[in-house]
Amino acid sequence: MNNLKIAVDAMGGDYAPKEIVAGIELARDRYPEIEFDLYGQIDQVKPFLNETTRINLVQADEVIAMEDEPVRAIRRKKQSSIVLAAQAVRDGEADAFFSAGNTGAILAAGLLIIGRIKGIDRPGLTTTLPVINNDHQDQFLMMDVGANADTKPFNLYQYAILGKYYAQTVMGVKNPRIGLLNNGTEADKGDLTHKAVHEALAQATDLNFIGNVESRELLNGVADVVVTDGFTGNAVLKNTEGTALSMLKLIKNTIMAGGISSKLGAALLKPTFKEIQTKMDYSKYGGAVLLGVKAPVIKTHGSTKAITVANTIGQIKAMLENQIVDDVVTYFSDHSDDMAAAKEAMQK
Amino acid sequence: MNNLKIAVDAMGGDYAPKEIVAGIELARDRYPEIEFDLYGQIDQVKPFLNETTRINLVQADEVIAMEDEPVRAIRRKKQSSIVLAAQAVRDGEADAFFSAGNTGAILAAGLLIIGRIKGIDRPGLTTTLPVINNDHQDQFLMMDVGANADTKPFNLYQYAILGKYYAQTVMGVKNPRIGLLNNGTEADKGDLTHKAVHEALAQATDLNFIGNVESRELLNGVADVVVTDGFTGNAVLKNTEGTALSMLKLIKNTIMAGGISSKLGAALLKPTFKEIQTKMDYSKYGGAVLLGVKAPVIKTHGSTKAITVANTIGQIKAMLENQIVDDVVTYFSDHSDDMAAAKEAMQK
Repeated sequence: MNNLKIAVDAMGGDYAPKEIVAGIELARDRYPEIEFDLYGQIDQVKPFLNETTRINLVQADEVIAMEDEPVRAIRRKKQSSIVLAAQAVRDGEADAFFSAGNTGAILAAGLLIIGRIKGIDRPGLTTTLPVINNDHQDQFLMMDVGANADTKPFNLYQYAILGKYYAQTVMGVKNPRIGLLNNGTEADKGDLTHKAVHEALAQATDLNFIGNVESRELLNGVADVVVTDGFTGNAVLKNTEGTALSMLKLIKNTIMAGGISSKLGAALLKPTFKEIQTKMDYSKYGGAVLLGVKAPVIKTHGSTKAITVANTIGQIKAMLENQIVDDVVTYFSDHSDDMAAAKEAMQK
Repeated sequence: MNNLKIAVDAMGGDYAPKEIVAGIELARDRYPEIEFDLYGQIDQVKPFLNETTRINLVQADEVIAMEDEPVRAIRRKKQSSIVLAAQAVRDGEADAFFSAGNTGAILAAGLLIIGRIKGIDRPGLTTTLPVINNDHQDQFLMMDVGANADTKPFNLYQYAILGKYYAQTVMGVKNPRIGLLNNGTEADKGDLTHKAVHEALAQATDLNFIGNVESRELLNGVADVVVTDGFTGNAVLKNTEGTALSMLKLIKNTIMAGGISSKLGAALLKPTFKEIQTKMDYSKYGGAVLLGVKAPVIKTHGSTKAITVANTIGQIKAMLENQIVDDVVTYFSDHSDDMAAAKEAMQK
């Protein structure tokens, strides 16, 4: 595939525009088939750009700040880099949208400007997490991790389908094992929402549903796709990050408080700790993806630096080359009757 | 205080009755004011009992297994150790109930046999977790961690009050900081349930409510009492356990796969790793407590060994000596009008 174009919000993130520009230059050198439109305040962006090959600067007078109320910002800041970049995707001038900015605003731009795929009630946010201590699997995805706080069973049912497509096309898993995050593995566990989702997923013949999974087992690779509501998914994602960070910090602090043998031991283990940090660094897999909208919409952590920007462009390239959006559009168009029936059954 | 009596399910847990009996003997030696009634199959329990001082064996013909359906088991196995021990507490023959057995059955016994405190809609399960990397705090409690999967805002409001009493009387925190686990720190974050709870807690004048807290910050000691619904709380609790265990396993595996210097480093760091494991081992604080019922009901992990049993008895002793149940009964009796008003306001 040739001539992919990605619309980039150059102003989003703690280290924007510097690290965003540097990351896009890295990606430009890595992927000769991709062209970039960088939206931002040109006088601020330009000084960081070394070489303009396949990188176009597009002026955006406004910036949506991290603390702006998302939907209002999208509606009022019509000249912001997020709004203009999303409009370019909507209008077919670019194939995908990338930002490290205000998460809520990115989600709102995806939903309100780029738009939902027909047949999908609620697009959801998915992210890839590392599997550790498992020779046969190195990542899994979780969806939704926070696009929707209030969710109906039918939304989770659709997350399973969207997650399956993503795992197949981007992660390259042939027949992804789909698990439902629940508070026990037995089929009758959970609140009313999760019981209803379990029942629907167990009946879906085109999904490799392996049943309920518990949050204790996620990092062991219990599933390829972990389906969850956005409230729980967000809590579990942040808890995984927080617990892993706290553990590493605890190890460091305990070593520093120890004697000379402790410090010597730490020096000898330096490559080991480095390896662990690499393993736990899930930014290497790219950013979080809003699945269910008409083009790839990807956001990374606000603290994103150049290398993560470049990795995320690689992830977007995989989504575009594998035409995941077209496949999803086709699926939901072909299955509109099934969807209507499933929705009705789950509303009972 | 003298003559406390604790009713113990000697048959619950993976290492029962051996480790339960050994733990009770440890506790008996530690706490001369406590007497124990051990419910179980006497022919199985007796061989592990070295010395009968202040330990009475009570025959229970049946055992509720880990895989039994809880409510049905409580109703049908009338001669089980869990049912008989709970009945003894209900009838005033014992002051508290302890088991390492089937969690659902223990909760059901607490609710259906011992009974709710008047004015409390839904008792909740609370557990203590370690705070790490913080010199000023070494533990926090989270409630509910799984007693109720489907929860209304008013239930979470009552968890905050119950959690406050527990933190004050058992953890010794004078004015516990109460945080609401939510998917962002801003006041307007969350689903409809958590928004309603936030509003109610912010208006409660007798609670030191510090606002929303995120799961990323829990182990840093962001609050003394973390209020959450049982579905999310269960997911976050299990995720914390799972992530911490996976990290320790990853460190071990990476070291074992490393060269000689890696293994030497590990040998030098042995005391450090031991210290870390001690810090993360929250069983030292005892078991999970069902708060909101008429007597202390405590359960520990199925994998509980003797030392944790003894620590948990210490925790029960603190609850009994500080008369937490009486205080809670008085509070809800004195505030029945406020509760009715709060409940009505939150149902809107």
